[in-house]
Amino acid sequence: MVSKNQIKLITSLQQKKYRNEHQLFIAEGVKVIQELLQSNIMLEHLFVTESIFDTVPTAQKTIIKEADMKRISALHSPSSCLAVFHIPKQKEVVNNGLIVALDDIRDPGNLGTIIRLCDWFGVKQLVCSEETVDVFNPKVVQATMGSITRVQVNYLDLNEFVAQTPLPVFGTFMDGNNIYKETLPFEGILIFGNEANGISSALEKNIKNRIAIPRFGDLQQTESLNVATATAIFLSEFRRNS
Amino acid sequence: MVSKNQIKLITSLQQKKYRNEHQLFIAEGVKVIQELLQSNIMLEHLFVTESIFDTVPTAQKTIIKEADMKRISALHSPSSCLAVFHIPKQKEVVNNGLIVALDDIRDPGNLGTIIRLCDWFGVKQLVCSEETVDVFNPKVVQATMGSITRVQVNYLDLNEFVAQTPLPVFGTFMDGNNIYKETLPFEGILIFGNEANGISSALEKNIKNRIAIPRFGDLQQTESLNVATATAIFLSEFRRNS
Repeated sequence: MVSKNQIKLITSLQQKKYRNEHQLFIAEGVKVIQELLQSNIMLEHLFVTESIFDTVPTAQKTIIKEADMKRISALHSPSSCLAVFHIPKQKEVVNNGLIVALDDIRDPGNLGTIIRLCDWFGVKQLVCSEETVDVFNPKVVQATMGSITRVQVNYLDLNEFVAQTPLPVFGTFMDGNNIYKETLPFEGILIFGNEANGISSALEKNIKNRIAIPRFGDLQQTESLNVATATAIFLSEFRRNS
Repeated sequence: MVSKNQIKLITSLQQKKYRNEHQLFIAEGVKVIQELLQSNIMLEHLFVTESIFDTVPTAQKTIIKEADMKRISALHSPSSCLAVFHIPKQKEVVNNGLIVALDDIRDPGNLGTIIRLCDWFGVKQLVCSEETVDVFNPKVVQATMGSITRVQVNYLDLNEFVAQTPLPVFGTFMDGNNIYKETLPFEGILIFGNEANGISSALEKNIKNRIAIPRFGDLQQTESLNVATATAIFLSEFRRNS
């Protein structure tokens, strides 16, 4: 059974304000929860509608009815499990390797896909402007498919961060240099801008290397790539010769 | 005003069965409708909640209330316009250029993103297995952001098509050859499989070139890329040296 107070707490975690207050977040679905359980992230409690996750101690697991799962789930079609985890302590960003930086990405699906791409391409650190969608938003957690456990995500003042880094800084712009003709370093900061407005002008001032994916179709048409698909191509280019 | 019969017809077009019966489809949002109006695709009727699209003849345009827009829209938050267009006649597939082939892609967002990528990379023809989600599904039309007017999409027996083509055939597999080390032709068929099951075994038999995007992260982790982000990387590789 789930108590009224539990329902209230769990559904409140769909909002950033309450996630911060309680330092808890929710994850749904077998694959994501499995990956989180295998990571360093601490489980608070697990709710299941059938007997799965046998290794989780009974004190931390409650079998509930599907009707109750519907009441606590953030999903349209709830799965068989929902877990509440503790938000891990944020580690310091270290200026090494390839670091992806996001300037106000707002769509949870985009952030989730970008985290998955970082994981695939061995990018260990992702830094986000304070306005970027929260990584513990349930839709982001869902979209990462577990990659959230392998990529460190920090929220910080992106202008300050970019101003202090000794690493080469790359920004993605529609009018940037052809990425296929650039010599790309193994270490660096790679910045992507907001879905509608791109990289902010304040940040732009500190970016020396402007890069773009050339368009191969009919040049009369104005069109842009979605930020997540653009991230796929840029990360592929940074990694393909390494 | 929108009549009851119009509401019935328009909402029925959310289903493939009725799109086929009437040979009509719907598009929503200024950008998508604008691109469709500029293309060869024929407008049946346009519904707007404010005075936009001044070039459309009044006989083909009706100004309606927001409440009526809500009744005909397929969107959660309707925009200021919804248009009904005629499904264009399917042209024959021509065996030239780079052709993308989809084997049972089910997610409308994925198909929409893939069409947008084809447009970006100058791929003029997309062929889909009969089971692939319908290109005139409103969610697909939406996700293409107008690219639907520049990429020809054909539904056909993919096994037959692949068996007859004189072009080199490439299939994407988890265990394929490293795409970064392959010499890629300018013309060819590039096949992507279903989100959960990949390329069907029947089709696999006719595929000589098996390719994959290598994983750069921790190799112990099993993880895959979403088909739309994988398409971005493969198309980039086929085009980057051209």
